[in-house]
Amino acid sequence: MTATAAVHTSFSIDRFYAASPAEVFAAFSDAERKRRWFAEGEGWQVDEFSVDFRVGGFERSRFRFQGGPEISNDTTYLDIVANQRIVIAYVMALAGTRFSASLATIEFKPEGSGTRLVYVEQDSFLDGQDGSADRESGCRELLETLAIEVERAPVVAN
Amino acid sequence: MTATAAVHTSFSIDRFYAASPAEVFAAFSDAERKRRWFAEGEGWQVDEFSVDFRVGGFERSRFRFQGGPEISNDTTYLDIVANQRIVIAYVMALAGTRFSASLATIEFKPEGSGTRLVYVEQDSFLDGQDGSADRESGCRELLETLAIEVERAPVVAN
Repeated sequence: MTATAAVHTSFSIDRFYAASPAEVFAAFSDAERKRRWFAEGEGWQVDEFSVDFRVGGFERSRFRFQGGPEISNDTTYLDIVANQRIVIAYVMALAGTRFSASLATIEFKPEGSGTRLVYVEQDSFLDGQDGSADRESGCRELLETLAIEVERAPVVAN
Repeated sequence: MTATAAVHTSFSIDRFYAASPAEVFAAFSDAERKRRWFAEGEGWQVDEFSVDFRVGGFERSRFRFQGGPEISNDTTYLDIVANQRIVIAYVMALAGTRFSASLATIEFKPEGSGTRLVYVEQDSFLDGQDGSADRESGCRELLETLAIEVERAPVVAN
């Protein structure tokens, strides 16, 4: 089998949250909270969600949508600056076949009493399909769900 | 301390090698050979070079140039297709401070009796400095050294 030529793209999302950087960051660093906004969802079955939130640590998730094939996300934490920045690399696979490798830089910037989150993702689509539009739209949905998670949580002192 | 806003860039390098894809790939997969072209060099002191060449494996190197501060490279292997593709994420640090996170896709394509290597790197410069020109030039030098390594090795049957 010959590997298909990879397609390289990138996108960025900028979003304001009415919560402090410490609180938004906590929704990433706390495994239970992250699972809630990142992995759970109507129609989604989570088969695995394990997090080792430290530089060099892995996060693995395996899930299915409405009984479909297994989708997996293997994340490595590359850089963490508490309440300010998280950089990850993650690989997505469908039914065991890796189809994308991504570098995501997430920055949490104070803005008034809230947070400006800047998400930049640089992608290598290994199956030769430019999946950037779907990927960006999926990330935007997740960052919407994050807003619900951040709003439901008690406010953390900064 | 406030983290500096990251700078996102990318570059690609395309280079022909007069050796088969299997032979060029072997200079990446064989730790001893990779150390020779990737880590060793006049004026460079290699303090550590350890490789676990498999998907999810780490490669760590620590080195100094002419007695200067420690430079480190922590690599994670994200995807490997034998003789065809390697995808890595790697983080560089200077004296313990991480300054870049990168996604690199390396493709090995047969071209006549040789190999067309396509190297695409997508970078997040964490110190806010656009280091892409230096990074690209460093990668070009390494890919030149790789040519010397590939030419000195016995030809591997394909």
